[in-house]
Amino acid sequence: MTTTTHAFDTAISLTDNGIGQYTGQTTPEFANMVGPFGGVTAAAIVRAIESHPERLGEPVALTVNYLAPVNDGAFDVVVRPVRTNRTNQHWTAEVIQEHGVTTTATAVFGIRRDAWSDTQAAMPAAPEPESLADTTFAGPVPWMRNYDMYYVDGAVPAEAGESASSTTILWVRQNPARGLDFAALTALSDVFYPRVFLRRGRMLPAGTISLTTYFHADGAELAAQGTDYVLATAHAQRFARGYFDQSAQIWGRHGALLATSHQIVYYKD
Amino acid sequence: MTTTTHAFDTAISLTDNGIGQYTGQTTPEFANMVGPFGGVTAAAIVRAIESHPERLGEPVALTVNYLAPVNDGAFDVVVRPVRTNRTNQHWTAEVIQEHGVTTTATAVFGIRRDAWSDTQAAMPAAPEPESLADTTFAGPVPWMRNYDMYYVDGAVPAEAGESASSTTILWVRQNPARGLDFAALTALSDVFYPRVFLRRGRMLPAGTISLTTYFHADGAELAAQGTDYVLATAHAQRFARGYFDQSAQIWGRHGALLATSHQIVYYKD
Repeated sequence: MTTTTHAFDTAISLTDNGIGQYTGQTTPEFANMVGPFGGVTAAAIVRAIESHPERLGEPVALTVNYLAPVNDGAFDVVVRPVRTNRTNQHWTAEVIQEHGVTTTATAVFGIRRDAWSDTQAAMPAAPEPESLADTTFAGPVPWMRNYDMYYVDGAVPAEAGESASSTTILWVRQNPARGLDFAALTALSDVFYPRVFLRRGRMLPAGTISLTTYFHADGAELAAQGTDYVLATAHAQRFARGYFDQSAQIWGRHGALLATSHQIVYYKD
Repeated sequence: MTTTTHAFDTAISLTDNGIGQYTGQTTPEFANMVGPFGGVTAAAIVRAIESHPERLGEPVALTVNYLAPVNDGAFDVVVRPVRTNRTNQHWTAEVIQEHGVTTTATAVFGIRRDAWSDTQAAMPAAPEPESLADTTFAGPVPWMRNYDMYYVDGAVPAEAGESASSTTILWVRQNPARGLDFAALTALSDVFYPRVFLRRGRMLPAGTISLTTYFHADGAELAAQGTDYVLATAHAQRFARGYFDQSAQIWGRHGALLATSHQIVYYKD
């Protein structure tokens, strides 16, 4: 029997160099225009914290700041538990290469308790993914080929021209299919092409500067999603002289709001 | 002539101890249930970065993590420019007291450029603040008395009972009135009482764990607001076993979306 490691697991695979010090390797499969897909760098940070012997609980919040591209090759992930409370734990993290710090992050991990709970947001109406044409974008960015994408609304603009809406809704899962975990969910929170492309009807220079993800599901709720598609939606609130925001939701097929996420994106137009 | 320093300026006043090292003092006016109002701690971090001699541009994004209460008394703010790019700059910050790190933060400052710009979000409809009854909450938390609050929707629950909505909309400005700047806008992004109070119709243990603010206005657009009211709105997306998210918008009276903000909040119910 041959066991093949999933490309995503390879991309976030870390060597343990001692407490809080990990080394990863960029992979061509997850390359973006310049450096790797930001979502996979964020996922490697989550994986590093998960690997730390002092880690308490599961991810609750993560903010990743993209200072400079990660060059192809080795990168170090250094994570530090700054404070451990009774039910939550605060982390800082840095991704470092020979040329300096490429990425900073903070994270909150925590233990969930029985408490009154409710989902306030409404899941967008969408036809089942099996009823849609595969709209996976076979463009110049390799990382997108690691996802099956079925756009319900706001697909990557081709000849469509400008759009009054900044909203994209798509069904997405990893390709090949892989069980959902916190690292995969982290990467999914950055799976959207920049909202400014949709508004302007064309690609232009744009890149995420800071990404914040709130995890609303625990590990058991994620595991229950299996390898199924999730419904992912994103929109912008303001495009202001070189920076715009993007807010996203990641829904399980049966209505579990797994994560909400926000980012600020640089653009030139 | 007597010049009185505004209580907010006193609360974020910092002594410069050398490059990147500042000391502030908590003030009773901005006390919360335990420690100071989180918004004023976030504002002090913004003020510290603004004061740094290497600072480039104006705030674009800020994430503040609340690890432990800030005790009454002196606190140190240590800020570090981790990387300076051509048009943006990435910072890390920590608030430290004798008992350890109470607060971590990352920030992006940047220079705005001429670029295609548009506001995507719609400002909520609201009657002018002058037509509303003052609903400033004279409750047990001193910091709220530093704001004039006119609730349009979702006021602090008294006898109202549970609410199906998590949305609050209010007109708010500092009391006494004070010109809007980045520090004040930062504090305003945390001016909402916890959404879980509204849903449950009562107060219960809750506290912000991590706060992210995106600044969409530059200093000139903020200054143009003068001392006028801003329209602030917040809602939640999911309350999940001890943690809920809250997303906010801060609008100028005439429709400028000045900031959007997101936080994850601990609650016990």
